[in-house]
Amino acid sequence: MASPPGIPDIVIGRLPIYLRALTQMLQQGHTITSSHELGQRLGISSAQIRKDLSHFGEFGKQGTGYQVDHLLNQLKGILQVDREWPMVVVGAGDLGRALAHYRGFVARGFRVVGVFDTDPAKVGTVQGENTVRDIDGLEDFIRQNGVRIAMLAVPAEAAQAVADRLIVAGVRAILNYAPITLATPANVHVQYIDPVMHLQRMTYYLD
Amino acid sequence: MASPPGIPDIVIGRLPIYLRALTQMLQQGHTITSSHELGQRLGISSAQIRKDLSHFGEFGKQGTGYQVDHLLNQLKGILQVDREWPMVVVGAGDLGRALAHYRGFVARGFRVVGVFDTDPAKVGTVQGENTVRDIDGLEDFIRQNGVRIAMLAVPAEAAQAVADRLIVAGVRAILNYAPITLATPANVHVQYIDPVMHLQRMTYYLD
Repeated sequence: MASPPGIPDIVIGRLPIYLRALTQMLQQGHTITSSHELGQRLGISSAQIRKDLSHFGEFGKQGTGYQVDHLLNQLKGILQVDREWPMVVVGAGDLGRALAHYRGFVARGFRVVGVFDTDPAKVGTVQGENTVRDIDGLEDFIRQNGVRIAMLAVPAEAAQAVADRLIVAGVRAILNYAPITLATPANVHVQYIDPVMHLQRMTYYLD
Repeated sequence: MASPPGIPDIVIGRLPIYLRALTQMLQQGHTITSSHELGQRLGISSAQIRKDLSHFGEFGKQGTGYQVDHLLNQLKGILQVDREWPMVVVGAGDLGRALAHYRGFVARGFRVVGVFDTDPAKVGTVQGENTVRDIDGLEDFIRQNGVRIAMLAVPAEAAQAVADRLIVAGVRAILNYAPITLATPANVHVQYIDPVMHLQRMTYYLD
């Protein structure tokens, strides 16, 4: 599904939240919902939800609400997760291992197809559906498998160099778990997961 | 350090990013920086950085920039990470294990002091500095150790019940890795880490 240009990134960032909530609703047997009900679940105002969705067209009728499965499928199309994206994990330490074993990817549009590490003791070990590969083969693997997405679970000091290699090979989206800000070209998307940043944001409010 | 009231949450959310960048600068031997240099590193405008920091007072002089260590210590005080917060991890699966072993907490204000699980096969095993405890002892442990912060790494279907127990026992900040939105009282802070949401936010932009 082609999407209208110029939609604020913060709106795009809320669509996965809606998608997750709608998936749960469907699992719980709800077939119809409303921006009010969705807002109650998520702590987001119903006006905000209606405004966000209105960027992409008409999904519900005034007074009758949204068809859960229809809205869900539309959001999957908009976010392009109505397919399965192959991903690589770089770094097979504790975190890389958890990512390789994580069972939540497949139902939501993603599959780990390769796990890489530099450590000879890790190369060849089985992690989930994958056998850890030597990082020497990273670029070839990415090109051969058309991989566009990588998860980076290497130490901070190695992260930039690995990111550079990923990008040269064709990766355009990086989920970076290393606690550093990466320098990347404008056509590469990076998201960061650093648990400490989330914790520090909460301690501000504790008394 | 007491903080001025009414500072937007989005500003608070950027302070850990500044703190992380300043820590790296200090490690790299920088003693002075500017909003311009910080902005270049982070992809944030220098005007935004100056505006964010101005909520908390004067940290630099016009034309001479910021003293890195001074600004760093001020930010630590504002975020209340100039101390060590004890945390519990609930769930000793792959992810809980990665959290228990993560070495990045201590230098940044946090320490895992307890790891809990329901699985008798996991209880008693050693995870990093901790031995996994039976979840039956969760409330007593939280109260006895004055724990205010928990990381939730349990399956989605168990997350709300565990969160309720944590909150009754005194936890006020939850970092939730389970892929569901928790219902919590207004005085409890929740942050979410769901890698799929970050991935879905990026696939929108891939062509």
